Amino acid sequence: MHTDYGMRITGIAAYASPRVVTNDEIAERLRLAMVQLDGRLTRERGQGLGADERRKFMTNPRWIQKSIGFTERRFCQPGMGTIDLAVEASRLLMNRTGVPPTSIGAILFGTVTSSYLYSPPDAALLQEALGIPAWDGALPRETFGADVALACSTWGAALRIAYRFMDEVEHVLVIGADAMSTAISWHDRAFACVLGNAGTATLCSRVPPEQDWFGSERFFSWLDGSRADVISTPVGGSKRPLETHEELDTYQHRLRMDGARVREDMVPFISGPGIDAVLTKARLNLADIDHLVLHEANVVLNRGIVGNWQQRGFRGAALDAGGRFGNTTSASIPLALALNPDALRIGKTIALVAFGGGYSMNTAIATIKHPFPVWANV
Amino acid sequence: MHTDYGMRITGIAAYASPRVVTNDEIAERLRLAMVQLDGRLTRERGQGLGADERRKFMTNPRWIQKSIGFTERRFCQPGMGTIDLAVEASRLLMNRTGVPPTSIGAILFGTVTSSYLYSPPDAALLQEALGIPAWDGALPRETFGADVALACSTWGAALRIAYRFMDEVEHVLVIGADAMSTAISWHDRAFACVLGNAGTATLCSRVPPEQDWFGSERFFSWLDGSRADVISTPVGGSKRPLETHEELDTYQHRLRMDGARVREDMVPFISGPGIDAVLTKARLNLADIDHLVLHEANVVLNRGIVGNWQQRGFRGAALDAGGRFGNTTSASIPLALALNPDALRIGKTIALVAFGGGYSMNTAIATIKHPFPVWANV
Repeated sequence: MHTDYGMRITGIAAYASPRVVTNDEIAERLRLAMVQLDGRLTRERGQGLGADERRKFMTNPRWIQKSIGFTERRFCQPGMGTIDLAVEASRLLMNRTGVPPTSIGAILFGTVTSSYLYSPPDAALLQEALGIPAWDGALPRETFGADVALACSTWGAALRIAYRFMDEVEHVLVIGADAMSTAISWHDRAFACVLGNAGTATLCSRVPPEQDWFGSERFFSWLDGSRADVISTPVGGSKRPLETHEELDTYQHRLRMDGARVREDMVPFISGPGIDAVLTKARLNLADIDHLVLHEANVVLNRGIVGNWQQRGFRGAALDAGGRFGNTTSASIPLALALNPDALRIGKTIALVAFGGGYSMNTAIATIKHPFPVWANV
Repeated sequence: MHTDYGMRITGIAAYASPRVVTNDEIAERLRLAMVQLDGRLTRERGQGLGADERRKFMTNPRWIQKSIGFTERRFCQPGMGTIDLAVEASRLLMNRTGVPPTSIGAILFGTVTSSYLYSPPDAALLQEALGIPAWDGALPRETFGADVALACSTWGAALRIAYRFMDEVEHVLVIGADAMSTAISWHDRAFACVLGNAGTATLCSRVPPEQDWFGSERFFSWLDGSRADVISTPVGGSKRPLETHEELDTYQHRLRMDGARVREDMVPFISGPGIDAVLTKARLNLADIDHLVLHEANVVLNRGIVGNWQQRGFRGAALDAGGRFGNTTSASIPLALALNPDALRIGKTIALVAFGGGYSMNTAIATIKHPFPVWANV
């Protein structure tokens, strides 16, 4: 393998909607949805929800905090979607770094909650919103763009693509943004207690090879579709389009998860063979990692992974969003970085570990070699 | 710019569903939807559709063939989605090329009609379906994967990412697959007359630099989000989630297009400054292009572009799917290649031009330097 270029992160900006949603509100909204559904079923079939069915709606703030670890999250205002989160984060990034729109050669827009189905792509919306020129005199001005998705591993996949584009463009704008509130089924506590909204923008910039923060061997990617059903959406994709009122009313087009199964599979995987494969490829040990940033799927689950790493020789610190933003999917890792500016010092080696639906995993290991400024609106 | 590797296409396979849908059937289905809606509105508000509203449903086979150029298209059977189209095409590709699943280092799954919303990603489903191993003994086996979308330019974007990955992996499987029937509003003839379903699989393989079919300068990408509203989906993305029965009943979650505007904007663009920028970057002239493959958005529109190219010095042939498959979005360019095996001879230079929603454009120019086998089930 050969590279004649490297990549640094010039800066990261994160934007979270102002509207804080507490665990109380989540529990109450689920309760209301249960009452409504129960009333409707009683009217329509003369019988309300059974005890087992009711359990899927029942939670309380203490349980959420103890079992999942989130204390609150942010939701967008109605009318705001993923593109709005991304635009806010990108504007913050470009204002603070001073990098002009004309310097952006590629946009990799990582999201699983596209602003629009089918078209327009979020990459094009962002190009326009940021004033990245579409024309250079009489000729179209080149900008590469793509919307990239890989469930909770999306940001890791987009970052790896960015690294590959350093050969061609000087600055790649990597977005990790999700309005996960729009993916919640209010008939199922599993994800309702977990998901939140945030947008992030990461500026990846070309540097000479000796200043590379990464290296091809420091990226690792994994797919295991044999367990695709653990995190999945029954209706609304091309496999089974949304067609009936009943499907809509019962949130069949929203995300589902077997949370116990995720924990059983993911904690041992990321603690053991997952990280072993990553470190083997990178020729590093757990003791070489100063900071670990795990996709914040579930704070308690992540604590389990960090504990296992520590038993195996990890002496660094876990950087996270402190359970205050929920699982923000494509935004979680850059959000955690943006909230921990003091940790991002030159010489530190950071493991970025995205994992989730698919199953999938995408990791990157960066050694900071330049100032690494980050900004957040919270 | 430096490359120490190149890329060839080892083969392309295309799969179209067996079910042929004629223009007659499309016109009849639109008529039925009109009658149903008219009846419902008459019952609910005492007044049916007005003349202007009725016009959006009215078409006839002659008009479709004359004005758009499609004679038929394929739709999936119910229960089949994008992943099924991709699996069929990929199996055909791997059987015929003899490349084993263990050789695939990356899957770039180009689609705008993901099989599932949010999760699981199609890349993971395909890894599992093809038997690409998730494990190598006790450690996870590395496969890069991502779902990639950029409206009608999706396949071009995925191909360009594949080229960048040649530095790291020997074979990249590029999927272009869409079940566009699931994006049709049956209350609007604009896309109903146009869209079709197909899956394609393209095997991109590393070769020494002197055997490269491409070169960095032979890819061009463009975004112009200022005209994002021309091809867009009102409801169902994170910007405006699908919430009401009325939205569902009136197909607000399906794709819309201002067809006249697309023609007005795209024909002059692809005929003029669009191709000029592509050729300037590639240091080629129109006379150097032996074959042109345009995204088959609309046969009549494409004929206009080819005519304009010919006036400007293009002496080659346009390769297409003959108007028999509709606009298959991410599948259209590889499908056209797969249906024209005799044209794909060593020494020929082919311009692959994807364009559409966003607006966006992604082009690649390939000079064939090895045998270029293609297969199709039709």
